[in-house]
Amino acid sequence: MKSHIITKLVEIVGEKNVNTDPAEIYCYSRDSTPFQYFADVIVRPANTTEVSEIMELANGNRIPVYPRGSGTSAAGSPLPVKGGIVIDLTRMNRVLGFDEENLQVVIEPGVICDDLNEFLKDYGYFFPPDPASSSAATLGGMVANNSAGNRAIKYGKTKDWILWLEAVLPSGEIIHTGSGTLKSVSSYDLTKLLCGSEGTLAVFTKIGMRVQPLPETYKTAMFLFDDLNRAGEAIVKARSSGVVPCAMEFLDKLTLGTSADYAGLNLPECEAMLLIETDGIESAAEKELKIITNIVRGMNPKQWKIAQDEEERNSLWVARKSAYAALARCSITTTMEDLTVPISKIPEALKRIQKIPERVDNLIRVATFGHAGDGNLHPTFLYDERIPEQQEAFFKALNIIYNEVALDLGGSITGEHGVGLIRKDFVEKEHGPVEMSLMKGIKHVFDSNNILNPGKGKPWGSAGEP
Amino acid sequence: MKSHIITKLVEIVGEKNVNTDPAEIYCYSRDSTPFQYFADVIVRPANTTEVSEIMELANGNRIPVYPRGSGTSAAGSPLPVKGGIVIDLTRMNRVLGFDEENLQVVIEPGVICDDLNEFLKDYGYFFPPDPASSSAATLGGMVANNSAGNRAIKYGKTKDWILWLEAVLPSGEIIHTGSGTLKSVSSYDLTKLLCGSEGTLAVFTKIGMRVQPLPETYKTAMFLFDDLNRAGEAIVKARSSGVVPCAMEFLDKLTLGTSADYAGLNLPECEAMLLIETDGIESAAEKELKIITNIVRGMNPKQWKIAQDEEERNSLWVARKSAYAALARCSITTTMEDLTVPISKIPEALKRIQKIPERVDNLIRVATFGHAGDGNLHPTFLYDERIPEQQEAFFKALNIIYNEVALDLGGSITGEHGVGLIRKDFVEKEHGPVEMSLMKGIKHVFDSNNILNPGKGKPWGSAGEP
Repeated sequence: MKSHIITKLVEIVGEKNVNTDPAEIYCYSRDSTPFQYFADVIVRPANTTEVSEIMELANGNRIPVYPRGSGTSAAGSPLPVKGGIVIDLTRMNRVLGFDEENLQVVIEPGVICDDLNEFLKDYGYFFPPDPASSSAATLGGMVANNSAGNRAIKYGKTKDWILWLEAVLPSGEIIHTGSGTLKSVSSYDLTKLLCGSEGTLAVFTKIGMRVQPLPETYKTAMFLFDDLNRAGEAIVKARSSGVVPCAMEFLDKLTLGTSADYAGLNLPECEAMLLIETDGIESAAEKELKIITNIVRGMNPKQWKIAQDEEERNSLWVARKSAYAALARCSITTTMEDLTVPISKIPEALKRIQKIPERVDNLIRVATFGHAGDGNLHPTFLYDERIPEQQEAFFKALNIIYNEVALDLGGSITGEHGVGLIRKDFVEKEHGPVEMSLMKGIKHVFDSNNILNPGKGKPWGSAGEP
Repeated sequence: MKSHIITKLVEIVGEKNVNTDPAEIYCYSRDSTPFQYFADVIVRPANTTEVSEIMELANGNRIPVYPRGSGTSAAGSPLPVKGGIVIDLTRMNRVLGFDEENLQVVIEPGVICDDLNEFLKDYGYFFPPDPASSSAATLGGMVANNSAGNRAIKYGKTKDWILWLEAVLPSGEIIHTGSGTLKSVSSYDLTKLLCGSEGTLAVFTKIGMRVQPLPETYKTAMFLFDDLNRAGEAIVKARSSGVVPCAMEFLDKLTLGTSADYAGLNLPECEAMLLIETDGIESAAEKELKIITNIVRGMNPKQWKIAQDEEERNSLWVARKSAYAALARCSITTTMEDLTVPISKIPEALKRIQKIPERVDNLIRVATFGHAGDGNLHPTFLYDERIPEQQEAFFKALNIIYNEVALDLGGSITGEHGVGLIRKDFVEKEHGPVEMSLMKGIKHVFDSNNILNPGKGKPWGSAGEP
């Protein structure tokens, strides 16, 4: 990168917020995928004006820009594939205001999900989307990915809670989408278009969100199955119960074997665990859990129990939320995939996923967990990326997962992690050429020089390279 | 319109589905606004292929096309401002399938909202958005407007329930947006972009929706106030109660005076009514209503009661849902406006609305009702459009409503009815020039010849006239 660009960046954000040190560049070269790319410079702006000036500079000089939060992506989304500038937004981490009468909170994009909920708790509210990475994931990243997590089954995804965005276009222009009211249809829905655009259309600088009153209580049940298929069927039946639980999570044997240990749960060996939770007014949460429990018990679980106190509930959730981290301790490389299928296809999807290792000569292992109630599974491959045969087997497995499991079963190649790099090759199979060309057209409207997060799965195809 | 176009339309949909009879053209020239425009021809396609062929023909000949459902718009949205073709989609009114395991229903755009719910009821499900016009409004129109209605406060808007769309572009190309799964982030969100685009981007031909289990019960309370401001304050306080009701509706004195009579309710004279409903498991709905009721009672209502049975509940809802129809019987012209403000601004908004008649020499009257819990009010003007002074007073009142009530109080010029014709002049005040130019760019990507619903508030500005 030319030194006059660095000089200008220093003028914008100050010397200590511009970094070209190789050690620093290295830190920003990875996320949780096996990919690695190096930026030329890391810039850490403090406010909207600085972001705007950085974008204008980059756009005028056709320099790629990669917005980044905490880097918890499991898709390669923030990686600087074409070099250039990484904008680290984690300094912009203030809760700017909570308006209790209007049930809205305004935050900067670097606020961490759990921190926001810690803040809201004092007022009796919460922001429902709850990715397993909530202790690290920033809201800016969650908006960029339309993250969902454990509570989406009842409360929806990040997109469903965002009322408005302040964002900076590649040109440096600052836009305000949406409205600070709970309803507005006065424009094309730019807010929901930006949400889930994976940093390819604009850089978010402020986020206006609605919030939900905290439920009075949670009721949590755990079911262990010694048959994977029966666990899958139990999910399908439980979803038709007429009750919408606030979580319906699945963990397979390999996942459970590592994460139960990690969470200090003492469980017998089994093929699958379901974790089902209801919330709300005590009597209703209890009744609803009972309705679901009766259905799931009809599928002959090996063991089941209802959490008797907050501590028992916490252990179950620690097991679920630490699934990926626990698996990552067992293997050099751990890549968490992300697919959705219609609920009725879950048993077949689980069957197909379990067969993948033998189809690639057992060179890799697979552990599966996920938000089963939404049809959203996270098969996670365990292998050693340093061994070429294993790396090759992984890419074969990827093909099977997305083509033969997700798409062949009428599903989608990503439920909540985004396309990023890891699913880039599968997008064109899910979406037709006309839809792709509409999306390319939209990308061009926002970013005609293709400087925002170039080289990823969004936008697709031939937008000009920087 | 040239006769060879009519000949081709007849080839596509058959002679009895092409109509140029002035009486028929007249029927399609109005909705519930004071505007009137005449199409050259009305076409009634039966399927996607026919819609595609009509669009290709129109696009090739630069003929404006106006998609239309039941014509219940309160915004002028379906009116054929530039003449051309009205596509009446009401023949495409089949429920194509309900997939109970996957909690999804597939319908054609001409299905009427209440008919869909009648169909779903047998399975124990419902489609929550509930506009007051639900007995006539088509789902295609509801998707085009992102309609909301009485239950949006808890269950969201039409957009929140649509998983995928089959739609026809102006080119005649058929696209499929979204995914038949409950979660997908594999594309820019074309589904939510089309939803609320008011027929300016594509014509919907199939709609894939998720559905919600019917609640066990409803609990409904009515409060009468002899002070408008106190009713407004009660709404603000009730919304901060930690309970999310499934409806929180408001009717002012003039509305109530006509609709209570219409619904056979015997009520004392008062300044305002609040109608608040909770739903779910019996014990929870009861407890939640009690929490809200206690708060609202603290605001000294003149009278209050909880509906003791389904009949009492129905009367209250008939009064609310018939508000517009009842008012329409009292006046030659009745135009229902649509604005949102932050919840905390409701008392001030109500005050400003009540003062409008005296600001226009009392030439018109105003009645206000709406989804107060969302900050969404429908001030409805009563006057005689045949008297020029009254018509002029109405347009002055419009200016006050959108500029001095909606926008000056931080709100939006439309919460659920769309921009259409009636709010066309106010869009540029709500959205800045950069946002407008992004929206024009998006319009151009979908409809470069501007043949779809031209002359309306969406898209804004200078997209080429057909």
